[in-house]
Amino acid sequence: MPEIVVALAQMNSTIGDLDNNSAKIVDYYQQAVRVGADIVAFPELCLTGYPPEDLLLKPEFVRASTEGISRIARQTGDTIAVVGFAEADSDTFNSAAVMSRGKIVCIYRKTFLPNYGVFDEKRYFGAGKKNVVLQIGDVRLGVTICEDIWFPGGPLEAQVAGGGAELILNLSASPFNRGKHAYRRKLIAARSIDGPAVLAYVNMVGGQDELVFDGGSCIHHPQLGFIATAPRFREALLVSQVDLTPLRRARALEPRYRHGDSVRAGENPQVFMLELPVKGFNGRQSVQPAAQSRELDQIEEIFEALLLGLRQYMSKNGFLKVVIGLSGGVDSALVSALAVEAVGAENVTCVFMPSRYTSEISASSAKKLAANLGVGLLTIPIEKIFLAYRESLPESTGHSWADHTLENVQARIRGNILMALSNRFGWLVLVTGNKSELSMGYCTLYGDMAGGFALIKDLFKTQAYKVAEHMNNRAGNDIIPRDIIERKPTAELREDQLDTDTLPPYEELDPVLEAYVEEGMSAQEIMEMGFSRELVRRVISAVDGNEYKRRQAPVGVKITSRAFGRDWRMPISKYQGMPFYGKRAAGLSE
Amino acid sequence: MPEIVVALAQMNSTIGDLDNNSAKIVDYYQQAVRVGADIVAFPELCLTGYPPEDLLLKPEFVRASTEGISRIARQTGDTIAVVGFAEADSDTFNSAAVMSRGKIVCIYRKTFLPNYGVFDEKRYFGAGKKNVVLQIGDVRLGVTICEDIWFPGGPLEAQVAGGGAELILNLSASPFNRGKHAYRRKLIAARSIDGPAVLAYVNMVGGQDELVFDGGSCIHHPQLGFIATAPRFREALLVSQVDLTPLRRARALEPRYRHGDSVRAGENPQVFMLELPVKGFNGRQSVQPAAQSRELDQIEEIFEALLLGLRQYMSKNGFLKVVIGLSGGVDSALVSALAVEAVGAENVTCVFMPSRYTSEISASSAKKLAANLGVGLLTIPIEKIFLAYRESLPESTGHSWADHTLENVQARIRGNILMALSNRFGWLVLVTGNKSELSMGYCTLYGDMAGGFALIKDLFKTQAYKVAEHMNNRAGNDIIPRDIIERKPTAELREDQLDTDTLPPYEELDPVLEAYVEEGMSAQEIMEMGFSRELVRRVISAVDGNEYKRRQAPVGVKITSRAFGRDWRMPISKYQGMPFYGKRAAGLSE
Repeated sequence: MPEIVVALAQMNSTIGDLDNNSAKIVDYYQQAVRVGADIVAFPELCLTGYPPEDLLLKPEFVRASTEGISRIARQTGDTIAVVGFAEADSDTFNSAAVMSRGKIVCIYRKTFLPNYGVFDEKRYFGAGKKNVVLQIGDVRLGVTICEDIWFPGGPLEAQVAGGGAELILNLSASPFNRGKHAYRRKLIAARSIDGPAVLAYVNMVGGQDELVFDGGSCIHHPQLGFIATAPRFREALLVSQVDLTPLRRARALEPRYRHGDSVRAGENPQVFMLELPVKGFNGRQSVQPAAQSRELDQIEEIFEALLLGLRQYMSKNGFLKVVIGLSGGVDSALVSALAVEAVGAENVTCVFMPSRYTSEISASSAKKLAANLGVGLLTIPIEKIFLAYRESLPESTGHSWADHTLENVQARIRGNILMALSNRFGWLVLVTGNKSELSMGYCTLYGDMAGGFALIKDLFKTQAYKVAEHMNNRAGNDIIPRDIIERKPTAELREDQLDTDTLPPYEELDPVLEAYVEEGMSAQEIMEMGFSRELVRRVISAVDGNEYKRRQAPVGVKITSRAFGRDWRMPISKYQGMPFYGKRAAGLSE
Repeated sequence: MPEIVVALAQMNSTIGDLDNNSAKIVDYYQQAVRVGADIVAFPELCLTGYPPEDLLLKPEFVRASTEGISRIARQTGDTIAVVGFAEADSDTFNSAAVMSRGKIVCIYRKTFLPNYGVFDEKRYFGAGKKNVVLQIGDVRLGVTICEDIWFPGGPLEAQVAGGGAELILNLSASPFNRGKHAYRRKLIAARSIDGPAVLAYVNMVGGQDELVFDGGSCIHHPQLGFIATAPRFREALLVSQVDLTPLRRARALEPRYRHGDSVRAGENPQVFMLELPVKGFNGRQSVQPAAQSRELDQIEEIFEALLLGLRQYMSKNGFLKVVIGLSGGVDSALVSALAVEAVGAENVTCVFMPSRYTSEISASSAKKLAANLGVGLLTIPIEKIFLAYRESLPESTGHSWADHTLENVQARIRGNILMALSNRFGWLVLVTGNKSELSMGYCTLYGDMAGGFALIKDLFKTQAYKVAEHMNNRAGNDIIPRDIIERKPTAELREDQLDTDTLPPYEELDPVLEAYVEEGMSAQEIMEMGFSRELVRRVISAVDGNEYKRRQAPVGVKITSRAFGRDWRMPISKYQGMPFYGKRAAGLSE
């Protein structure tokens, strides 16, 4: 019976920690052997972690990865391991080693190298030009890496049509953004059906600076659909029996797919045929695929990504505890609640830093929140420090100190206090600003922007409310007090200040930001969505003019398809009248 | 007589300001026409500015550039203009439009796209696949763009060997780093001689965030050497008569170069032959090439790059004045002197912010420096504010406040004061930290790192002294007082502190940093240079462990071949035991 047991090791790697990553790979391999897997596949570059960025420019690093894979190979037996690593050869390659019985049987090199969004793979890697197909018993196995299956016409097609592959592995390190998991599953299904081939997709899990890898590894069978799916946002070993009978029956009816057929001219791949020892597939204990959990909705997956991203940044950078400045607003409340969920109340300290402009409701909300969450709350009034600045700043210049300056001074006093606590106690300062503020520059450099990790920097304000509500629903009570959720947003840096003094209402602002920043739409296109010329101009001008602030912002979890991070590379110095650019350049009036 | 008059417009563009860039192109074109040029060439992407980064992902932006080039074409006459622009077609291309008599005659698309260092061109552009050769009178002209001539086997060879080109234009936007100009000239000479062809190289000039473009446009003749060179670090129109007789004589002796010969198999380019109107080269007034100034030495070119970079960041971001915190040390003195040189003493304010740890010599040095430079000096003691912080920080935590924390508090008070002045008066805060400090993390986030432009962030401390000495020599007296140059470096954040309490002496540190950061050498290789294992480990650990600080640092002028900017993309979260990586991974002891 043409049946094969496939294990997918959805693991979390640490960048550069080859020894521990290797140990983990070997451990998963042994687990897979114990449950009777014929093949166990690991994520893209799981030996080095992903993305290693400019570490890949160090020859000694890539050499260590290449040597490391040989050491892993020596620990393999009859079960085949397919492991992603950085390969030093004539060039550096993003490769997958196929190993068994102590040896590297063959190496596949990634063919399609993404060089857009957060990806810089053409900076580091040469493109693979050869396909591999492995013969195991009477099953033919192909290997692809991440991007290779994101577009038609790639190695999967060549391995199926030219090499007769029936089962294709895809080793991925595909970062999370909202909605991407659902898109990925459509893509995997499409490639599997078009192949046709069984497609076993193993994704990385974990966090790396601004990126979260959300797992969700799965196996799609062209005739049977998704036959196994791993959980998301956590490590897992997914094991599944794959029955190739329905695929073979279907192929027999379509002779063009018959084993050994050559593909159309121009697509003929160089195929390595490797005869691996025939293993006995019969009499093996049946392995149940992991139970498939229901799909997360958008807010749930954002919530999970935030938790994982925070935990990972902390553990990978050696932080045990966090400190958060509480304002009495929703952002700092949400960040505090997330931190408690992520690392426990005992590891979270909140700091309330009232000024002369702080309202009674802020104070009571902060206290209530801290009590609900069970976290320590320090109260450090900033008035004394603020007065010292006012007295120290020179009157000799002949100017009075405008409100705007003093607003920033207050924000920076708070930043300094949080950093002092961080320096003294080793706590990670969590920045609480959201994407709406960061887009518009409605935030103070070295003030509320000061800290090590900006957890919700890629979450629009309107989404922050939704995640807050989700956390309350989940808890079954208002751990984030309704006072906080229902009050009008304010920075409380002057008397009776409201965000809407400076910004459009968030319900108007966020869709425009989403269209401009995330979707990359033009001013014209956004106006055609029904937004006023004045609103569009105001928003785009603010976004374009505040690049200098974002350039100095800490990293935070990427949530949208375009975060202010590696996937947003905008010049600071530039012409500032860009919104209606095309019109102006065309000599038309604005 | 086979002679042609070539003009090279070494111009400065502003990113995204297509209207003003266009106007400037047309202005240079008309100047070139007035002096009798047959051809005038402009830098790579001079219509959009370079590098436009993710603006190139906006279809409306690339469309505006493509439309803009058509409008420029309409203003051309008999003189040929060759202008770099971003071209929207089936893909986006980094292109050069060849224009005359109101029309675009043909377009050449850059073939080699750099995707290393600061360059991300494969993120934005499709690669050109066709060469163009133009027939003008009896002269054949080829066109290349920047990277196209950086490696052998490129379009220049195809245009010469396959298309009979005798004169090759190269449109460049090649950013400065120390020593690169000399390297470029060798490269240009090599390509020209190997062609053989006259190579007219036009480089951009100006500053763009961290990059400075240093000009130095030139024409190299394979028989006559460099026949014309433009000044560096400023705009210029270089005009030169090019006599092709010696080239033709030489080619006649080597029949393989005879016009119309086909090249070797595999190199045969697709060549467009375009017959342009024959223009009368005779009877034209002779044009003198610009006088070639002597080559700048390394410190001189760094000095010029710093001035240009600062001026450009200010003018392109709308700053008229700067503010600098003076410590009494060499870095802040140098930055102040550079600022005065760049924008004039009347536009520079220095701020001296003494604490209880500030020495008398710092106070007197700061005063002397300010007097020498003729700048305004504000003195704002931080003691009162510092005490207010000490009193406000909670004793309730049961910890005393360690020195290290209070050191940072002081630095951040100074940062807050400078930012308050910036917010109030619109002054750009210049950060005074150098590369040695930034590499080692010997600097305070939101403290001495706070500001808009970190002028000398890519200058090692030992180089800072050299530039300071250069400025004194240039001035003919010690505008930077000898006290400042000769005292031992100190941060003065606690009693009797010296940099060497924390760092190795700069004479030892800087070569190790240069080897590790700039040259990308491994720990092993650096030890083989003669540095101790302990020193190498200490330096590399500090560099690797302080990525989080650098990620929040402001931009500053790139001086070395590898600055902490777009050409240094390192993960923050990573295994921190990397120095002897290869050894450890290989199972060897450290």
